[in-house]
Amino acid sequence: MPRRPTSRLPKIPEMTVRRLSVYTRCLLALEEDGVKTVSSQELAERFNLNSAQVRKDLAYFGEFGVRGIGYYVSGLKAELQRILGLDREWPVALVGFGNLGSALFHYRGFGRQGFRIAAIFDDDPAKAGRQVNGVPIVSTTHLAREIKARGIQIAIVAVPAEGAQAVTDQLVAAGIRAILNFAPTRIRVGRDVRLKDVDLSIELETLSFYLAKGPR
Amino acid sequence: MPRRPTSRLPKIPEMTVRRLSVYTRCLLALEEDGVKTVSSQELAERFNLNSAQVRKDLAYFGEFGVRGIGYYVSGLKAELQRILGLDREWPVALVGFGNLGSALFHYRGFGRQGFRIAAIFDDDPAKAGRQVNGVPIVSTTHLAREIKARGIQIAIVAVPAEGAQAVTDQLVAAGIRAILNFAPTRIRVGRDVRLKDVDLSIELETLSFYLAKGPR
Repeated sequence: MPRRPTSRLPKIPEMTVRRLSVYTRCLLALEEDGVKTVSSQELAERFNLNSAQVRKDLAYFGEFGVRGIGYYVSGLKAELQRILGLDREWPVALVGFGNLGSALFHYRGFGRQGFRIAAIFDDDPAKAGRQVNGVPIVSTTHLAREIKARGIQIAIVAVPAEGAQAVTDQLVAAGIRAILNFAPTRIRVGRDVRLKDVDLSIELETLSFYLAKGPR
Repeated sequence: MPRRPTSRLPKIPEMTVRRLSVYTRCLLALEEDGVKTVSSQELAERFNLNSAQVRKDLAYFGEFGVRGIGYYVSGLKAELQRILGLDREWPVALVGFGNLGSALFHYRGFGRQGFRIAAIFDDDPAKAGRQVNGVPIVSTTHLAREIKARGIQIAIVAVPAEGAQAVTDQLVAAGIRAILNFAPTRIRVGRDVRLKDVDLSIELETLSFYLAKGPR
């Protein structure tokens, strides 16, 4: 159904990609409710989205709507999952198994979207050598070997700020192509590696902005 | 210097608010490097931003640039901090002290921006009654009392999905005005409460999108 093959995609704004993730979740919820078709207006109203934005975002990838019907919920969901790379399982390396690493390991949202933490790296001798739910915790000495053996392309960095750049360099040398960085520091990667920094305090700042604006 | 008083602000897109947070970090980095003034072009080049977007975002709040000079780094930083409500300290309630709650408590980024976790709530009898770095862990039975006594307006929800709505209802009844939700579930609040869901798997999906697009 898409008009343009994905191999000739124009440059897609990152916010569009984020919103595709949101749309996928909305469609999943509709599917669970037994809804078969939905218009962009209905989608927008139900999930507090902007219907023009929905149409514009989807238009990057093809013509999904059917005149007089709207979108087929299951079909569009499957299409968006394919576009987002969620039609397969991605093994993920988790580096750092402190509080945050442990929380991320147990975070149920990842597995639901096809991300499976396949190896954990931590240099703490009390942790390395153990297993968590069947996943080995390995010393970073063996990082390159494990990542190559398991064909891992995505890594989550959850180490303290001080160690983040060194471990990132190791990940990149081992062939990692995409990094999600939770360490509260700026790390650098080459142009062929995709880096996404997660700054949890930005989320709080969007809240304080609204509280600071004035009285209730 | 701003032309419009903040009390008559037009509706500000949430992405603009997020970007103000990013600009504030960039200006802080420039200030640390001893840079006194910067143009929107220089700011954009150095931090990989869009200069037209920078000007448009700032224009919501006033006229900050000076012809032939650009922006005064320290002045603009202070102004953005004020707009974001970061010129004061916000006491924050943290609900749930499992792996994620503990990781968030120790997350250094919050304190740096003026967010101070002032009370922790957890019903685990092994935790309630203890203190962490001087902050009390309190049973949710006493949630309303503690929140009112400490004048807390912002809460972070880091409990399992099953308990999230119940604890949110308690928070709202206690007078909380803004909630950052890490529980992987949809929670509901009234219109006068600001809710921000953090879905960590969306961040991974922006990465898999780029990996799925094609060969390296």
